[in-house]
Amino acid sequence: MSDQKLLGELVDIARAFAPYGKVADYIPALSNQNPDDLAICIYSIENESYYAGDHLKKFTLQSISKVITLALVLMDNGEDEVFSKVGMEPTGDPFNSIAKLETNIPSKPLNPMINAGALAVTHMIKGDTVIEKWDRLIEFISHLTGQQVTYNEDVAYSELQTANLNRSLCYFMKQHGVITGNIEDLLVLYTKQCAVEMNCVDLAKMGAVFANDGLDPESGRQLISKDVARICKTFMVTCGMYNSSGEFAIKVGIPAKSGVSGGIMGSVPGKCGIGIFGPALDEVGNSIAGTKLLEGLSAKYSWSIF
Amino acid sequence: MSDQKLLGELVDIARAFAPYGKVADYIPALSNQNPDDLAICIYSIENESYYAGDHLKKFTLQSISKVITLALVLMDNGEDEVFSKVGMEPTGDPFNSIAKLETNIPSKPLNPMINAGALAVTHMIKGDTVIEKWDRLIEFISHLTGQQVTYNEDVAYSELQTANLNRSLCYFMKQHGVITGNIEDLLVLYTKQCAVEMNCVDLAKMGAVFANDGLDPESGRQLISKDVARICKTFMVTCGMYNSSGEFAIKVGIPAKSGVSGGIMGSVPGKCGIGIFGPALDEVGNSIAGTKLLEGLSAKYSWSIF
Amino acid sequence: MSDQKLLGELVDIARAFAPYGKVADYIPALSNQNPDDLAICIYSIENESYYAGDHLKKFTLQSISKVITLALVLMDNGEDEVFSKVGMEPTGDPFNSIAKLETNIPSKPLNPMINAGALAVTHMIKGDTVIEKWDRLIEFISHLTGQQVTYNEDVAYSELQTANLNRSLCYFMKQHGVITGNIEDLLVLYTKQCAVEMNCVDLAKMGAVFANDGLDPESGRQLISKDVARICKTFMVTCGMYNSSGEFAIKVGIPAKSGVSGGIMGSVPGKCGIGIFGPALDEVGNSIAGTKLLEGLSAKYSWSIF
Amino acid sequence: MSDQKLLGELVDIARAFAPYGKVADYIPALSNQNPDDLAICIYSIENESYYAGDHLKKFTLQSISKVITLALVLMDNGEDEVFSKVGMEPTGDPFNSIAKLETNIPSKPLNPMINAGALAVTHMIKGDTVIEKWDRLIEFISHLTGQQVTYNEDVAYSELQTANLNRSLCYFMKQHGVITGNIEDLLVLYTKQCAVEMNCVDLAKMGAVFANDGLDPESGRQLISKDVARICKTFMVTCGMYNSSGEFAIKVGIPAKSGVSGGIMGSVPGKCGIGIFGPALDEVGNSIAGTKLLEGLSAKYSWSIF
Repeated sequence: MSDQKLLGELVDIARAFAPYGKVADYIPALSNQNPDDLAICIYSIENESYYAGDHLKKFTLQSISKVITLALVLMDNGEDEVFSKVGMEPTGDPFNSIAKLETNIPSKPLNPMINAGALAVTHMIKGDTVIEKWDRLIEFISHLTGQQVTYNEDVAYSELQTANLNRSLCYFMKQHGVITGNIEDLLVLYTKQCAVEMNCVDLAKMGAVFANDGLDPESGRQLISKDVARICKTFMVTCGMYNSSGEFAIKVGIPAKSGVSGGIMGSVPGKCGIGIFGPALDEVGNSIAGTKLLEGLSAKYSWSIF
Repeated sequence: MSDQKLLGELVDIARAFAPYGKVADYIPALSNQNPDDLAICIYSIENESYYAGDHLKKFTLQSISKVITLALVLMDNGEDEVFSKVGMEPTGDPFNSIAKLETNIPSKPLNPMINAGALAVTHMIKGDTVIEKWDRLIEFISHLTGQQVTYNEDVAYSELQTANLNRSLCYFMKQHGVITGNIEDLLVLYTKQCAVEMNCVDLAKMGAVFANDGLDPESGRQLISKDVARICKTFMVTCGMYNSSGEFAIKVGIPAKSGVSGGIMGSVPGKCGIGIFGPALDEVGNSIAGTKLLEGLSAKYSWSIF
Repeated sequence: MSDQKLLGELVDIARAFAPYGKVADYIPALSNQNPDDLAICIYSIENESYYAGDHLKKFTLQSISKVITLALVLMDNGEDEVFSKVGMEPTGDPFNSIAKLETNIPSKPLNPMINAGALAVTHMIKGDTVIEKWDRLIEFISHLTGQQVTYNEDVAYSELQTANLNRSLCYFMKQHGVITGNIEDLLVLYTKQCAVEMNCVDLAKMGAVFANDGLDPESGRQLISKDVARICKTFMVTCGMYNSSGEFAIKVGIPAKSGVSGGIMGSVPGKCGIGIFGPALDEVGNSIAGTKLLEGLSAKYSWSIF
Repeated sequence: MSDQKLLGELVDIARAFAPYGKVADYIPALSNQNPDDLAICIYSIENESYYAGDHLKKFTLQSISKVITLALVLMDNGEDEVFSKVGMEPTGDPFNSIAKLETNIPSKPLNPMINAGALAVTHMIKGDTVIEKWDRLIEFISHLTGQQVTYNEDVAYSELQTANLNRSLCYFMKQHGVITGNIEDLLVLYTKQCAVEMNCVDLAKMGAVFANDGLDPESGRQLISKDVARICKTFMVTCGMYNSSGEFAIKVGIPAKSGVSGGIMGSVPGKCGIGIFGPALDEVGNSIAGTKLLEGLSAKYSWSIF
């Protein structure tokens, strides 16, 4: 059976889990998604791609953007500066929790994959203005996908209106000197970052760059330094799948980052990138069918890194 | 330069960090250790070994034993039963913390590498009596090392006397039905397990079994099932190095488990096992020189799995 | 209308709330109680008593005993020694919580009304053996009630069997030096203390001693020093009614301590003691009808101290 | 010895403790205060006053304002509405903590004396605009003191600039529906409230109104309803003195509320109000000399309510 055909069969099997999940409902743009959607693209480091499902359907990155921004910021600022502001440790607390900021002294987000840490990372994007920072980020993402990407204005606007928990995290960190400057500016930038839109082929392409030690399989250019690509893949394993990162590492074993839109970006070192879109989420916030699909793929192709 | 010679040089470089650490001091047997000790063995899956430092010096496993017991218990009871009693998620809390047992409902240790989880795992060793359970465990460890190992009675006795925090964890878990039966029996078993004694060659040999998907490089026998070996290596990455597991994954990227005696067992998938003994600890409880040594080795040989 | 008759009417009104509560069910002896029971005695500092309901029915003190033991221990050891081991501050955490013991450094129970603090207090009863300590305590209680009291062996035995959470608290405190010595001995003493049995007249009599600045209204003897009586009444206000102590202070305003058996001992400074028995509990563990009864009494007689 | 003379002597004794404290230093206006200052006024419900120290020196209310605003808001909205948004229970956490907002479901500040609760209370002041709300509040305070009071603009401005922790609390509560509307407006109102300025005579006068069941000793008017006055005094006991409220209740036993400026308002039921200014603070944030002074007064005049 061809890889392409096998992929279609695995998607059909995984789609059966979608009804057990539910789409995010905190903003209209997400709650309107079709819970039965499931699409995947596998993009090899030899620049070949396979897909199944409606692979051209667009969705927003949401938390997946945390890894991309981290890569940019690490290259801009260096590891020492970045990790003086955000930790490297996984946490047993929810992604949007504020408690550890209070109990850990000095106050510092535990890692860049929880909201507090991601906000601190976005705060470090180089640029004098929000526009300059945004331009740098969207250009970087466009390089990774190989084409110009944009963001969904409705989603960004809705998220900014409902971003009070992130506001709370920001002001808490501002109080403790983790971040400085104008908080609304930072939130505008962060919500745009989360609202960047693409399809699963673009997402797989980005995953392939990480899988290929930062080298673009298409252009052959080094878009991310090898060390930074490695660091990002490490965070994807230790804290990429919200509060089931540990379970995902055991059952799947592929560096991956998910978002509340139902997207998952996977990166199999030395092999391929994976882009998945399946908006029905499990109780911790990962695509329920997407996770099952990755479990099947990892078992089939022995992709666990462990 | 030969691998053997290079290893000696890397050990000399790493030993310079020992004075910045300090040996565990909660029991006499540990506080009497020489802080300048540093020994390493690398045991390849082709059954070749290299070592440097005083590689015959014995030390106790302490928390390293948590991985070994987990392997035995997973093979005895199956994943479903084990993970109904202990979780798979890393935690931002200290290894001996009780707080999450109270705040997480239902009360269940977050993972098998923190003390609460390790006690719940040891509780699942098959056997009608403490003696039967102990015999099963020590026989299993002896198979892994390839020779009969024993435990240090002084260390086990001292630890049992000072085990009040572990007693507290046990009774808390008993209250919530995570464990049952006699707590003193469990603590006797657990402290003996922590007091198992070996040298860094034995430790590297065990690491090699995990690295070789559970297959003994010496005898060719399958001592651990492939799946269980993979699960153990995953936990070693997500929570093997106490509260700097995340940082270690980024800087070293090798599945590893450390103990408060100064031992570290590493396992490079498909390559080799590593045994290290360096009793001077950093502030989170890992061998300070041992960690530096692994960082050097990983960079030199590109052993990061990410 | 006479006070006696009014009391009967208030009891009838309050009893209507009993069906909204439920009796404690963690041991058989408590779960067998009749949820509709409601009895009260008011014992004035002029040595007059009024009662309504089945005032001769016996029940166990449970947490009410925490105040009595505190009085004894304060007189035995002095404020400085007692408060070096246990704090004076109310807590927003549940009465059986362990979390604050971990997060507060140095580890010390926040107050003597939560289980951890009460265990630390019982630990300070003078005596070389459990028997000596117990004899001192039961003699003290008998002086307060004016007649020999005993304990319910079934209740004490059942509670000892199920005391794993208290065991956990004890070993945690032993680890941190708050208590020393044999934990099972301490738990035997503590569970006997909780199982002391009396009726609501005895309970009201004890409350009257506190209300009368430690002076026995019956014999005229100073059973408790004035300062210690004041300290105990203060704790009854700030943390006597579990996690609704604050609400009780606002709505009732009478120093009071409740127990999971459904007993409440009240103490109106300069006026009277109150003993209530109503085993149907509200969701935080206070007698639901008893609380309503006190609210009615306080409003009727302006007994709030605020 | 006359009361007036005795007061002077007690002040001299208490002032000796000032060097062991230190003035608040988070804004210039507070850090410039003289740590040796200590002034007191006792204002009886018979409308007589006694004072010692520089009784005309002005200071800002800071957290003392929380009680006054609570009184106004309770009269405006009724108990049911107010306590649907803020709890009645003391907490073992710091006054500015956010953790309990996250762990308590539904998210609701534990009481009106911690910052989160006070912000929720200020949010309930009636009025269509910040100006209307402010006018109502300052008029209410002026009635209580018996003369027009104003606020310190420098202090209000400085506090607004550094109010990021309060911003964080507000947005967290907004996320959870505890408060609504514009957060900067609320913070402007809250910082003005905290910056209301008066001397210790004014403060004692306000305390006397609470002591006199809400009746103004000067004009004979009922400025606060009796129930609301009682509720406020209760909160002053259970959580008025930050994280040493429990200790203060035991050692002093007077309803009191302190502020970080060094002010303390006391209220001895049926006797007198007390106003103290002593800016050197102890480690929990209470006037160190002021606390000692109240301890002396309470012992001397048997003012403990317990």
